Amino acid sequence: MKVLLVFAHPEPRSLNGALRDIAIAELKTGGHGVQVSDLYADRWKSEVDRTDFASLAPDARLRVAAASGESFAAHTLTDDVLAEHEKLLWADTLILQFPFWWFSMPAILKGWVDRVFSYGFAYGVGEHSDTHWGDRYGEGTLSGKRAMLVVTTGGWEEHYAARGINGPIDDLLFPIHHGILYYPGYEVLPPFVAYRVDHLDEVGFEDVAQRLRDRMRTLATTAPISYRRQNGGDYLIPTLQLRPELGDPGATGFALHSTERGSLPALPDRTC
Amino acid sequence: MKVLLVFAHPEPRSLNGALRDIAIAELKTGGHGVQVSDLYADRWKSEVDRTDFASLAPDARLRVAAASGESFAAHTLTDDVLAEHEKLLWADTLILQFPFWWFSMPAILKGWVDRVFSYGFAYGVGEHSDTHWGDRYGEGTLSGKRAMLVVTTGGWEEHYAARGINGPIDDLLFPIHHGILYYPGYEVLPPFVAYRVDHLDEVGFEDVAQRLRDRMRTLATTAPISYRRQNGGDYLIPTLQLRPELGDPGATGFALHSTERGSLPALPDRTC
Repeated sequence: MKVLLVFAHPEPRSLNGALRDIAIAELKTGGHGVQVSDLYADRWKSEVDRTDFASLAPDARLRVAAASGESFAAHTLTDDVLAEHEKLLWADTLILQFPFWWFSMPAILKGWVDRVFSYGFAYGVGEHSDTHWGDRYGEGTLSGKRAMLVVTTGGWEEHYAARGINGPIDDLLFPIHHGILYYPGYEVLPPFVAYRVDHLDEVGFEDVAQRLRDRMRTLATTAPISYRRQNGGDYLIPTLQLRPELGDPGATGFALHSTERGSLPALPDRTC
Repeated sequence: MKVLLVFAHPEPRSLNGALRDIAIAELKTGGHGVQVSDLYADRWKSEVDRTDFASLAPDARLRVAAASGESFAAHTLTDDVLAEHEKLLWADTLILQFPFWWFSMPAILKGWVDRVFSYGFAYGVGEHSDTHWGDRYGEGTLSGKRAMLVVTTGGWEEHYAARGINGPIDDLLFPIHHGILYYPGYEVLPPFVAYRVDHLDEVGFEDVAQRLRDRMRTLATTAPISYRRQNGGDYLIPTLQLRPELGDPGATGFALHSTERGSLPALPDRTC
């Protein structure tokens, strides 16, 4: 395999830094190729703005999608973005690793998505017709590849469980899993989540490390989340509503968009 | 009222820029005080890093929550962050306005949250005991105030409906509504969402503008989303699971955490 790991933590000596090194070592031991985009180390620029689009006339109004599409087609995107496109096309597996800040990714990683996922590359791909609404949600530039999140939280696993106050972790991650990764074509693996990482002792750390090694060893064989393909017949076009006869009668919201829930194992039976 | 509007679009001549000006004008006509944080115009720094924490020794490991809490307590946060704290404490109503990029806020606005929502200010507030798990989710520094999102999307309203492929808009916004705004104490108003904004004609624009004016006129009287208070008795402590007897039997996930769904009006009955 060829793996791109995008890493978004400001401190190399952090738990995240240690987990990154463990993942890379395990992958290399398995004979896989690894590239790393270390966003803080690379001083990644987070903000989409007009300096991203050299071909835009100085007095022209910036329309982001249009400028992105024109720059992509004309090969005039900035070098940092083009380098990420090369890595994404090289890799058959993408890992995004980050601490869960305010129930999403750190700004620097969101800025990697906002800038790298260009129009014509990650969206605005493919033809629109009565049976096909663009190449997205299971089709697109990155189809045939796999993606997975490696996430750490300060909060307790129980607080992210089915009835936990934060909301279920798989629902909190849906905008990333489905909206950012499945959208341009990735098959999305269940996430690796390490909870309550500010209070890990040595035994707790080794447990997390071993779970991560296991996930790295099974990257190629782990079953992805069973999201429904947009153009596979399950959705009405153009409203893109799930057909009325589909979906578990009890399912609502995000759960409708996979054929089985199954993205997360049940919460371990244990005391706090 | 005193309103802080945080604006996150790179182009002042955009639809977002026009809507911002309309909102401000309507609020001023109503006699309200308005401050604006225009993140792109102010060249807001998006990334949490060690330069945010002047008191951190150069060779010390950066632990973000700890450094944030120490800097907040010692009044050594950076001037840009302290200025935002002042504005948040001044305002009784917060509006976050942004285009919906990759099913969340632009990086620059996430960076405003990551940096401004300091430990001791927006999290890590209050005492922990058997009946009280910190001042959060309905309690905290910003309790007694209201907050609301103003969001634009390129996608169709149908695609964000209950069975739409993107997932329901109220679920997609839950990590922001509940996890970012309700968490430090805000009462969260139903969002203002303008869909398919890349294809608005003059009549369509005036319709959106009028809806926004109406929302600005009713900021003080609109009923907030009925999220459950963490320390109000609905959750078990310390697992913070919703008590087994609570919640609509058919409800799952995010819907459990408000006493009525009701955060969004039904989809208008119309053709596409």
